[in-house]
Amino acid sequence: MSSVPRRVQAARAAGQALAALDGAERSALLSNCAEALQSPAGREHVLAANAEDLRLAQAEAAAGGLAPALVQRLRLDAAKLAGLAEGLRQLAAQADLVGRVSLRRELDAGLLLERVSCPLGLLGVVFESRPDALAQIAGLALRSGNAAVLKGGREAAHSNQALAELLQGVLAQRGLDPAALTLLEGREEVRELLALDRLVDLVVARGSSEFVASVRAQTRIPVMSHAAGICHLYLHAGADPQMAAQLALDAKCSYPAACNAVETLLWDEAAGAALDACVERLREAGVELRGCPATLARHPGLEPAVEPDWDAEYGTLVLSIRRVAGLDEALAHIAAHGSRHTEAIVTGDEAAARRFLAEVDAAGVYWNASTRFADGYRYGLGAEVGISTDKLHARGPVGVDGLLTYRWLLRGHGQCSTEYGPGLRRFSHRDLPLD
Amino acid sequence: MSSVPRRVQAARAAGQALAALDGAERSALLSNCAEALQSPAGREHVLAANAEDLRLAQAEAAAGGLAPALVQRLRLDAAKLAGLAEGLRQLAAQADLVGRVSLRRELDAGLLLERVSCPLGLLGVVFESRPDALAQIAGLALRSGNAAVLKGGREAAHSNQALAELLQGVLAQRGLDPAALTLLEGREEVRELLALDRLVDLVVARGSSEFVASVRAQTRIPVMSHAAGICHLYLHAGADPQMAAQLALDAKCSYPAACNAVETLLWDEAAGAALDACVERLREAGVELRGCPATLARHPGLEPAVEPDWDAEYGTLVLSIRRVAGLDEALAHIAAHGSRHTEAIVTGDEAAARRFLAEVDAAGVYWNASTRFADGYRYGLGAEVGISTDKLHARGPVGVDGLLTYRWLLRGHGQCSTEYGPGLRRFSHRDLPLD
Repeated sequence: MSSVPRRVQAARAAGQALAALDGAERSALLSNCAEALQSPAGREHVLAANAEDLRLAQAEAAAGGLAPALVQRLRLDAAKLAGLAEGLRQLAAQADLVGRVSLRRELDAGLLLERVSCPLGLLGVVFESRPDALAQIAGLALRSGNAAVLKGGREAAHSNQALAELLQGVLAQRGLDPAALTLLEGREEVRELLALDRLVDLVVARGSSEFVASVRAQTRIPVMSHAAGICHLYLHAGADPQMAAQLALDAKCSYPAACNAVETLLWDEAAGAALDACVERLREAGVELRGCPATLARHPGLEPAVEPDWDAEYGTLVLSIRRVAGLDEALAHIAAHGSRHTEAIVTGDEAAARRFLAEVDAAGVYWNASTRFADGYRYGLGAEVGISTDKLHARGPVGVDGLLTYRWLLRGHGQCSTEYGPGLRRFSHRDLPLD
Repeated sequence: MSSVPRRVQAARAAGQALAALDGAERSALLSNCAEALQSPAGREHVLAANAEDLRLAQAEAAAGGLAPALVQRLRLDAAKLAGLAEGLRQLAAQADLVGRVSLRRELDAGLLLERVSCPLGLLGVVFESRPDALAQIAGLALRSGNAAVLKGGREAAHSNQALAELLQGVLAQRGLDPAALTLLEGREEVRELLALDRLVDLVVARGSSEFVASVRAQTRIPVMSHAAGICHLYLHAGADPQMAAQLALDAKCSYPAACNAVETLLWDEAAGAALDACVERLREAGVELRGCPATLARHPGLEPAVEPDWDAEYGTLVLSIRRVAGLDEALAHIAAHGSRHTEAIVTGDEAAARRFLAEVDAAGVYWNASTRFADGYRYGLGAEVGISTDKLHARGPVGVDGLLTYRWLLRGHGQCSTEYGPGLRRFSHRDLPLD
């Protein structure tokens, strides 16, 4: 057997001990991880490794092989480590969700059914992004009682290795098998991981749309990820111009690369003043605006939008703008072009807002709020493994909840199914209090 | 565009009206379906179509093309229709689960987050089994506010057509678009359906393992199904012999073709008396028993089991029997050979039962109860679309709950994400009562 299946099997086995911990033990484990990250030795270990990654990346950038922005995103410092440690402490403080009973039903006297939450088992985590992701996702795995096999980006290899060693050291100190957090290296090892559908329960993929698509194409294991973030801000006839402009600025400019940034502004004919306010603020902020013919008629200075603009996730300071004939056309545009991530309406008209909230099929549907709130921290989930645009299992920002499943436990005294039926015993199906 | 994408699109659009009904309207719709099924005209329509299916199937069986058992399973009669109507009435009586708020959180003053359940949208339902399945799954789709595109087995084509017409008639009578329940025909139409991953939210597959595997191989849409049902009954040292024999008989013989029937009996050396009682009862019931060498040493009359027996889903009156060295070996055997469906321990020893309940990774884990209880009706779910052996989204018997997802609704007054952060506003994250 190649070493990858053996290591993945070992990670899976190590996860059983994590699942068996009680909530206080899992909290203590997370607190210890936070302490290790801020201990002088831990900090030095990680920052030295990060310096090596930065040195290599800068050399590659100088040779033209890596974008300078990417080099910047690699950088860790004491403040970033403190932030990661704070995130782990927040997870440590969270109520434990493993072992929660969500249904308790007496099927008959002495025949008790319970639905009890439990970890999924083993997560496969593949990410392109900053090394911060390793600590965050490892924290969520430990909080949810799951083992994880992780593979990060090539550019952050030393940083990821140092972070993993640090967390593995904490596991060992607490008498747990460090294999519960296993780090893989190289594309070939990822390919092997993605083939192990008997061992890996869920793949978490973080990175560009192309990266996620390539992961999905390689595996039969369920993949949690967001495919794309094409979010809309719809200025309804009842929109307040100043509010519209603030929201458009926040939703487009506060972090244009984020999946919850808006890509398209829709406006009603009667929301012209709101549109004008948005255009003014967005231009001041340096956003390139691309309009449909009706938008250009009102704002001749804009670039013309072409058909692919309505399906584009720019990820930069570009925004497309389209006039719609009203709520129905806005809903139709969003249904046709949205990626089911987060959609927002700006309006003072409660009836219109109600319809928008009821009818848009997306993970997040907002009224008079920025799409940028679509985030695990902002929702109060403590952290997130990512934002899911799938409809099954977990939708929107995914925290600990999305890394759990449940089992149906039935305790009896020898009852047989053939005792029940017409003319025989009847099920009582009496729901009992949960706690 | 071929007619299938157009019809699937129409079904999806028709589903929006179902989703927008309130609970009382959905209940009335289901009651009307039950009435239609028992009205003289409705009954006659369905039974006449069924008679035609039976005539064709008997001719095919006479020519050797169809198993006589399959012909029997096709048959509908007044009693079966009454049973289906009763199932629909039970669904009509259920509390509506659409629009339930499972989280209500104030992120800040005037910024309210809610997590609200909603239908998945459009179900693709492909089934090989009896025409009963059509009425059951259509009922679950209507209760959960989902539209469905259905394709049943070729042998039941006339019966399925008549049942679908009946239910479509009820939709039309209530002013709803009958396209919300759309029936497809033929393999080519199924192939087209399975390619429409932008339109279909979930495929429900019911049939043999081969059938389900072929559906999964043809689509990128998530598929809900059980892959296999390899369930174990483990006679622990503390097993009561009489209880063990009753449970083995029920779990093996009450419906051997069911996925929740047991395929393998495990026994501890110290559970010899329980084994003996099981062997006696199972032999009386005509079960073919295949044993490991240790089992054969105690019961020389049995057939020897070979390696593939431990991974076999017999579906008939055959049972494999293996001696294990104790709880650890039983757990290891189940982890290696079980299909994560339903696993049971028989014991009076509470500590052993606790470990079994805690450590077995399966949708159902039972103590002193027959695996045959793994069923939506028996669990009190009202009905089931099937039993899922996947871990994500829904596990075990899947009722209305498993056909729902949720959306995050956020209502604000123009709040922007950049107002929050260190030195700025802080989130309150205050959970509010749900109702």
